[in-house]
Amino acid sequence: MRFCSSCGAPIERKVPEGEDRSRDVCTACGEIFYRNPKVVAGAIPEWRGEILFCRRAIGPREGFWTLPAGFMEMRETTAAAAARETLEEANARIVDPALYCYFDIPRISQVYVMFRARLAEPRFSPGYESLETRLFEIAEIPWDELAFPAIELTLRRYVTDLEAGHFVVHNETIDRMPGE
Amino acid sequence: MRFCSSCGAPIERKVPEGEDRSRDVCTACGEIFYRNPKVVAGAIPEWRGEILFCRRAIGPREGFWTLPAGFMEMRETTAAAAARETLEEANARIVDPALYCYFDIPRISQVYVMFRARLAEPRFSPGYESLETRLFEIAEIPWDELAFPAIELTLRRYVTDLEAGHFVVHNETIDRMPGE
Repeated sequence: MRFCSSCGAPIERKVPEGEDRSRDVCTACGEIFYRNPKVVAGAIPEWRGEILFCRRAIGPREGFWTLPAGFMEMRETTAAAAARETLEEANARIVDPALYCYFDIPRISQVYVMFRARLAEPRFSPGYESLETRLFEIAEIPWDELAFPAIELTLRRYVTDLEAGHFVVHNETIDRMPGE
Repeated sequence: MRFCSSCGAPIERKVPEGEDRSRDVCTACGEIFYRNPKVVAGAIPEWRGEILFCRRAIGPREGFWTLPAGFMEMRETTAAAAARETLEEANARIVDPALYCYFDIPRISQVYVMFRARLAEPRFSPGYESLETRLFEIAEIPWDELAFPAIELTLRRYVTDLEAGHFVVHNETIDRMPGE
């Protein structure tokens, strides 16, 4: 950030009075600009024991498999964001979303919020950001070709809970980056 | 947003190519500025059956009671944010945070993430943003003087789960504003 988005004057980095960390502050109007982590909302779309995956058509991690997920928008709920992303990336509708994973990724200031959900019907096709969409059986999950650590961790917890016969909500912190 | 924070040129509101909603876009360098919901992280600090509350010294809702909570900062985990807010608002240390409530408040583009936690020791005092800090027994909770709907809903779920003898993670959407 170099210029004030309110008045256009230069920004300086400093600790505002009464605060404990440096912020972007306008040198003219004094406005303080706060940056905060972003929420990525996603779904595990299930259909008769299979899960819907998307192969990414764009970076980062083009060509790798992922679950539908993306940045939450203003004025929507997290479950609505997960449903919107599923529609955008796989042209598929989900129903009955249930909060399943809440993962912090402090290294990139993101929070992943993943919902278990059912496909409304077995209809899907690649959206703009996907090369390919398909249902995988649990035994077919492409572990070595997953796009992001949060997706892999979501699926690992899902498989374990499925085998245990009941699902619990998971809250964990992810430290590693894609491909690490 | 009126000026580009990268180059200082005027901003226009328009739908960027390939997107489905209007964004703040720079008329000179073309940068697109995204706005996203913010995460509020908080705690239910427990000490031998009592809960630590703070009475707000600042607006909004000055003078009303709340649980320690505030905006998550960059590069921290949500549980760390809840612990930091408890330290800032009540000079108290929490241990063993457990994810408890995930509430969407789409009307104000916020997500509340509340953790159950234990006070490390029965030491607390008002921080900069608090007039008063004290432990309340469950029967003493000041229901009519709570600052925010998300705090009230957190406590209602907490009391119900406490009576039922087990805690589950809650995911709900809040529609009403403080005082409504």
